[in-house]
Amino acid sequence: MSTTQTNKIEIIKAATSKINEVDFENLSFGSIFTDHLFECDFKNGEWQKPVIKPYAPFLLDPSSRVFHYGQAIFEGMKAYKDEDDAIWLFRPDENYKRFNKSAVRMAMQEVPEDIFMNGLKELLKLDEAWIKRGKGNSMYIRPFMIATGTGVIANPSDNYKFMIILSPVSAYYAGEVKVLIAEHYSRAANGGIGAAKAAGNYAAQFYPTSLANKQGFQQVIWTDDATHTKLEEAGTMNVFFRINDTLFTAPVSERILDGVTRKTLIDLAKSEGINVDVRPVLVSELVEASKNGTLKEIFGAGTAAVVSPISGFSYQDVYHELPNNEDSMALKLKDKLTNIQNKIAEDTFGWTVKV
Amino acid sequence: MSTTQTNKIEIIKAATSKINEVDFENLSFGSIFTDHLFECDFKNGEWQKPVIKPYAPFLLDPSSRVFHYGQAIFEGMKAYKDEDDAIWLFRPDENYKRFNKSAVRMAMQEVPEDIFMNGLKELLKLDEAWIKRGKGNSMYIRPFMIATGTGVIANPSDNYKFMIILSPVSAYYAGEVKVLIAEHYSRAANGGIGAAKAAGNYAAQFYPTSLANKQGFQQVIWTDDATHTKLEEAGTMNVFFRINDTLFTAPVSERILDGVTRKTLIDLAKSEGINVDVRPVLVSELVEASKNGTLKEIFGAGTAAVVSPISGFSYQDVYHELPNNEDSMALKLKDKLTNIQNKIAEDTFGWTVKV
Repeated sequence: MSTTQTNKIEIIKAATSKINEVDFENLSFGSIFTDHLFECDFKNGEWQKPVIKPYAPFLLDPSSRVFHYGQAIFEGMKAYKDEDDAIWLFRPDENYKRFNKSAVRMAMQEVPEDIFMNGLKELLKLDEAWIKRGKGNSMYIRPFMIATGTGVIANPSDNYKFMIILSPVSAYYAGEVKVLIAEHYSRAANGGIGAAKAAGNYAAQFYPTSLANKQGFQQVIWTDDATHTKLEEAGTMNVFFRINDTLFTAPVSERILDGVTRKTLIDLAKSEGINVDVRPVLVSELVEASKNGTLKEIFGAGTAAVVSPISGFSYQDVYHELPNNEDSMALKLKDKLTNIQNKIAEDTFGWTVKV
Repeated sequence: MSTTQTNKIEIIKAATSKINEVDFENLSFGSIFTDHLFECDFKNGEWQKPVIKPYAPFLLDPSSRVFHYGQAIFEGMKAYKDEDDAIWLFRPDENYKRFNKSAVRMAMQEVPEDIFMNGLKELLKLDEAWIKRGKGNSMYIRPFMIATGTGVIANPSDNYKFMIILSPVSAYYAGEVKVLIAEHYSRAANGGIGAAKAAGNYAAQFYPTSLANKQGFQQVIWTDDATHTKLEEAGTMNVFFRINDTLFTAPVSERILDGVTRKTLIDLAKSEGINVDVRPVLVSELVEASKNGTLKEIFGAGTAAVVSPISGFSYQDVYHELPNNEDSMALKLKDKLTNIQNKIAEDTFGWTVKV
């Protein structure tokens, strides 16, 4: 291992690279990590010297607050390589802002912008060989922060660890996605943490999702917990509904994550002349539109799958199959977006940022 | 370190004890741990050989699911030493059952009873010198389980780590406790994880609690998230309200933890001839009872503080001071309960279990 200094980040390089062990043609999402990670600890009331070092397990005390009280947040981002091998990020400022919004809601320390952004960029540069060119290929970036303070008392931690890890991914195909509309279980409370990208929001969905899986549905579309009449989000994706030629999606709220792909698709659809209506969408409207044939599409929007077409939904034990559309808005918007992200089409929105 | 075998548990003893470094007269709750911990891993589809070993930090992969998706649950229990130095647990079967109920809700592996109970008992025996006699003294026991499977994909983990750590504690005095009744923020959703002892439930409360702290309140009493009209629990305690000579407490639900101290106090109060009414209690009832002088007491009930009298509450910016009661039910019940727990009074309920 060699140690150098860049932008105040200490860099400890791995002695050897694992890259030749990786089959880039058969990547399983989020399971392979690059040679290095970025780490910065908050302790004694301040952020310590950041370091990039070989990806490896690290030590935690058994009483670390993350284990007992769940102070843990993350972001999901992607980096892309263009035909000239330049590395590009997509709207990283949105992820950075949301990360600190999550930090505030979970009573955690906010991460300074230079630590977040420089750490991210230096790590991507060091492991740039892991980023592959070509549409659908990208580097999935996982910034996350955990409470490392010790003691089993239910108070916010004094110490935190901020890390960034990188996982190369290829075009994501989830297979056919049938969804179940939630009638009993819920993802988020009014006045709760649904808008934060908090670790606990995800574990909460696993059990009800496993029940849906057993019934043959891949995902759950969550509804408001008080009445189960309003369509909210799918847990790892925001959701769009196309009725006739209008796209509907729920407004973000303290129960719904302010998705970067969601807001990007809204802008992209508008620029394509598509009518977008951001307002609460009722389950009853969806059922009615399905019955009268005006419901054309449902799709999810998120960093991992980008755009994920849904083939049908179940509500009150009735399965509603969606039609096959030759003019799928989901596929059109996905194509537009991935062309911008992979620098195949011009980015007239100023969303892409060179590393 | 020496290695021996007891009840199929591998025991690796610490070379030296830290016990002489501990000031047992000035214990800060949950911050000092004994010499050993119990650990059992679930991997390759089965529980591995359990081990008791020196308390120490352990290694985790940066992509461990507990960091990213919050699969983490725990229990809080106590052990006591009687005048003959025998060790007693208090209703451990209740904690064991609730632990696995939490595990199911968080899509985690259930822990077999022999691993949980034998691990607990052997660990207590090994570190028995850390358990002090005398009323108020006890060993706080923290069984917990975290997802150790790797990969940043939002699915339940395949691997888990179950651990038990021990922290000696003395009589808990929280100081004066003024509470704020929640009008915007919430602890749990209908159809959510409020009834599970999930790590994420606690971090979710830290920020709204910190806002209450700034206004001079030590705790928040949560209300139902849909209407904020029903009194629920205090996050680390269930809550009792005494109006005239009747004790009221909310029924447990999927939003409210089924507290062991709560159910114990209900039985204890009934055996003392106190009228206990378990039903939803409205904020408006509490305000009305405060105004007309029939509200005599509010107190919290939980393993850590046992019974925690509350001196007043604020709702809609009006502070309601509670009267000083010479015949405090809170203090009477606390005394009865701790006498049973510390084996000073006879346990006619069969709650105490000898280790």
